[in-house]
Order: sequence, then C-alpha cells, then structure tokens
Amino acid sequence: MTGGPRTVAVIGAGTIGLSWATLFLARGLRVRVNSRRPDARRAVADALALHAPAVRGAADPRTLLEGLTVEADLERAVDGVEAVQESVSEDLELKQGLFARVERAAPADALLLSSTSTLTPAALGARLSAPERVIVGHPFNPPHVVPLVEVVGGEAAPADLVARAAAFYEGLGKVPVTLGRALPGFAANRLQSALLREAVHLVREGVVTMEQLDTIVTSSIGLRWAAIGPFQALHLNGGPGGLRHWLAHLGVNLEPFWEQLGRPAMDRQTVDLLLRQADRSFGDRSFEELSRRRDRRQNAIMEAVGTLADRPDAR
Amino acid sequence: MTGGPRTVAVIGAGTIGLSWATLFLARGLRVRVNSRRPDARRAVADALALHAPAVRGAADPRTLLEGLTVEADLERAVDGVEAVQESVSEDLELKQGLFARVERAAPADALLLSSTSTLTPAALGARLSAPERVIVGHPFNPPHVVPLVEVVGGEAAPADLVARAAAFYEGLGKVPVTLGRALPGFAANRLQSALLREAVHLVREGVVTMEQLDTIVTSSIGLRWAAIGPFQALHLNGGPGGLRHWLAHLGVNLEPFWEQLGRPAMDRQTVDLLLRQADRSFGDRSFEELSRRRDRRQNAIMEAVGTLADRPDAR
Repeated sequence: MTGGPRTVAVIGAGTIGLSWATLFLARGLRVRVNSRRPDARRAVADALALHAPAVRGAADPRTLLEGLTVEADLERAVDGVEAVQESVSEDLELKQGLFARVERAAPADALLLSSTSTLTPAALGARLSAPERVIVGHPFNPPHVVPLVEVVGGEAAPADLVARAAAFYEGLGKVPVTLGRALPGFAANRLQSALLREAVHLVREGVVTMEQLDTIVTSSIGLRWAAIGPFQALHLNGGPGGLRHWLAHLGVNLEPFWEQLGRPAMDRQTVDLLLRQADRSFGDRSFEELSRRRDRRQNAIMEAVGTLADRPDAR
Repeated sequence: MTGGPRTVAVIGAGTIGLSWATLFLARGLRVRVNSRRPDARRAVADALALHAPAVRGAADPRTLLEGLTVEADLERAVDGVEAVQESVSEDLELKQGLFARVERAAPADALLLSSTSTLTPAALGARLSAPERVIVGHPFNPPHVVPLVEVVGGEAAPADLVARAAAFYEGLGKVPVTLGRALPGFAANRLQSALLREAVHLVREGVVTMEQLDTIVTSSIGLRWAAIGPFQALHLNGGPGGLRHWLAHLGVNLEPFWEQLGRPAMDRQTVDLLLRQADRSFGDRSFEELSRRRDRRQNAIMEAVGTLADRPDAR
C-alpha cells in the first residue's frame, strides 16, 4: 500500500455489490465500482440515498458519492487497490474468469474476496496462478446493516492471508467469523434453511399462519438469539448444571424429536399457500417501507445490545 | 369473579412455576403457589429477588412478596381463583390427576392452564368431567422475560374459552399466539430444534466452534429474527417482487438444499465434543452472571424495538 487514500474495488452493481459499495464509502474508503451497466453511477447514487441513512455513522449520501468511481474496465478498476470484493451473480465460470483477470491486474498483496453464497474458494480460484489467493467473504444480506461476514479460504490458503481478510472486515465494523472449512451454504444460510424447513411444515400443517410464525419467532427464539446464541441459550436452559445437565436430561430426546420434524414438499400447493399468506401478511406494505422498518429495527437492536455494559452486576 | 383482588394459582415451584409466580406478582396479581416443597416460600422469595429486577415495571421483591401465599393444599390453593397455571414436571398421569382435582375445587369459570411443552390439552384433560377446559399456555423460558405464550386447546375447546386464555396472557403484557392445532413441541420448540440440529452438525463437521456458531447467529439470523420474522425476511430477500420472486428464483433449490442438511447422531462422541466446547465457551462464567446478562440483553432489545415508531418515514 502506498500511504494514499485506501481504495477498494467492488465488482458487480447488483443488490449485494451496491450494499457493499455503500458500506465501504460510509467507512471512508475510496470505491471503484466495476460494472458494465450503463446506469451504474445512477444505481450507486440511488443505493447510497436509500441505504446510507441505515449505516451508523455514515456521512450524507452526496458527500459519500465523492469517494466513488465507476469504472467499466475491470483491469483499471482493480489497479492499485487494497481489496477486491467480487459480487457478481452466482455463475462459477464468470467468477473464475474475473478472478483470473483480477489476479493479473491487481497488486500482488491485494485481498481477492468473493461474496459468493454457494461456491467454494477453491473452485473460484481454479484459474489463478495462485488459486489460494481467493478468499470467500460471504456477507449476510444486507451487508451495510447486518454485521456477519463468513470468511473462508481454500485448504491451501495461508492462515495469515485469511486472517488479513478477517481483519479487513473487522476494521470496517463488521463481525467476521472464519470458518474451519467450506460447506455448501456455509453456516448462517444452512441454519436459516433448517429453521425455514420446519416453518414451512408448520404452516402447511395448519399449526400456524405465516404471520403467526413470524410473531412466534420475534417473541421468543429471535429475541433470544439476538441476545445470546443458541448454544449459550441451551447451556442456560440447563440451569446451574449448564449444558452438561441439559444434555443428560433432555439431550437424550433430541435425536428422536429431530426425526419428527417436518420434511415438506415445495410443491405447487405449498407455494400457492405461502403466496396467499404472504399477500395477507405483507401485501399492503411496500418493499421500501418494509425494508426501512427492518433496517431501523436491526440497527436499534444492535445499538441496544452494543451499549450494554457486560459487568455481572450491571442491570 | 367477585370484584376483589385478582388471584391466580401456580401449581409447582420449579423453574417455570417460580418464573410465572414472579411475573404474576409483578403484574399486581395475588398469587397462591401450590407446592409440597417445605422450602417453597424461601424458593419464591429467592426467585423474586433474582428475577423481579428483570421484569419491566416490577415493584421491589419485598413488596411483591406481600401478594404471595404458599399453600401446600391443592384444593385450598385454587379456591376462588381466576386462573390456574400448572407448571409441574412433564408427567402425564401427575398432571391429569392434578387437573381432575382442580376442576372440582376451582371456580367453574376459572381458566385451567398448563405450561406443558410436550403434552396435548386433550390428554391433560382426560380425567375431567369437562376435558375441554384444559388449555395449554406454553411459555418460552423464562416467562417473566420472554413474551411468547403458545395457546392451544383441544379439538372440543370452545373458541371463546381459548380466546379468554389468550386475553388473560395479553393482559399481563405477554404475546399469546393461538395455534391452529397441537403438534408435539408446538411451534417455537420445533423451530428451535430444527436449527439446533444443523448447529450440532456444523460443530461436528468442524465448520465452526460452538462459540463461533453463537456469534454467527447473534450477528445475522438472530438479529434479523428479533427484528422481523423469517417469512417477512424471506419476502424482503425477494426484493420488490417479494416472496413471489424469491420462490420463483431461489425457492426451487430449497428442497434439494434441505436434503443436504445434517442429521447428526447424538452419540457419546458428539456429546463429549459439545461439552468440551461448552466448557471452553462458557466455563469461566457463572449461571447467575450469564442469566442476568441474557435477560438484560433481551429486555434491552424489546425496549429498543418497542419504542420505535413504525411510520414508513421514521428513521
């Protein structure tokens, strides 16, 4: 790095790319957005106007725009950058080709990061001369609000390179978690999908409506898991004996209970049922209104939990 | 009801019973705790000292104690009460016998409510002359903090009786959700269990440690699901096209992805792995310290979300 202003490249101006660009700009980085969209500059400006108010500590959108360059040429976009955050669509060949070109044009020490939610770092790096340079930095949507970034390198990735990727995100106020290895969907999406499966089952079985299910989650496990994670919750459910006590007394029933969970088919009937209920639950409010409400609530929660002192005697 | 002070009975002075007693007292009800524990009064006093500070708007524990009667005789405990919240251990015969006696001793219009997490209202009422009177009011632990109560009656339960049970909880500041029918584990515990299954899988597979999994959840899906439920989250993931768009583009992959989720065995090796990681994650902090932290964070989150205006233009 040269000591000049820190510059990063975002490849792709879709939902995730625009959200990353917003975050990077809000954190004071210079951002080069590489996109062939003729309206790319307008798209970033719109995204900034929509998203920047939801980023804590961000300057106003017009000021942020000063840090932006839209660069249709990939090689020029990554020239001299500190990091590249690839966020194009989930097309392996497309991404492999992009990373091969990025490797040749970007500095040798630039971080090569992918937002992929489904592909492995090894596959993404297959066409590089140093394949291990590609690291997955998978955000939870939208990255300008939600803290998590799942970081994972291929088996050959040097530990210090992976650590440098995690440090990059941490320096931007994100919460990077470095995975031991890559499974399809990584961790958060797999957990989400597991819960969703039972949620669909409960709606199909007439136990709850879609709206009731959302109320159940926000009033119980969602609240719990925003405060502490599921394992610590289980540990405390065991009382003073902790997880050891819980597993000895209730853990024996886990496996048979898991076998009773639903395995719903996503057939036409299920899809129609979900869509009818979605119309009833959310149909009267716009995407923008609901998105702003979501982000506002998420930020309020982070603020509330973040400002709590964790002294044992604090109330 | 006589117009005198509202009185409810709590049967059982275990973890759940004590938490209910705390909530009822904090909301200004007179509470009769029925227990054969010789130290029942001390147990309630200890619970009040520990839990009451976590109940929003509660008076101090000593004042609350004035509303308490400990009554070892079941018939005297339920005499003249507005509602009975049964919270003894999950023993069907024990509960059936208790409810049969309660039916004879309590007012004909008293609500007969069970905290059961596994038994059906029909089974619980089997020995009553009016079996449909038993309604499940299943709290999410601990009931003095977490809002959700899953309410469900048997098939023969009159709708107005179920509605009265829900209104009882709502009047105490809880969030009752009336289920369409009872499945084992109801809804919240089934959803929790589904996520837990994948969580155990990810730890077993070396993708994450237990502590990392908790961080992943609090930094992504937990935060999301405390703000909005999983279905609304999915709806917004679809962009302006909503759930319809999401299901058309990504929903087709749901079923094959579900098939890839883990089915971990809770064998000796898994249990040992979880316990080792639990010791590493939580072993240095006491149950009381962690419980207080959990309740403090949950209350802060509810406060933060509850005070947000939901106008579309509000930030």
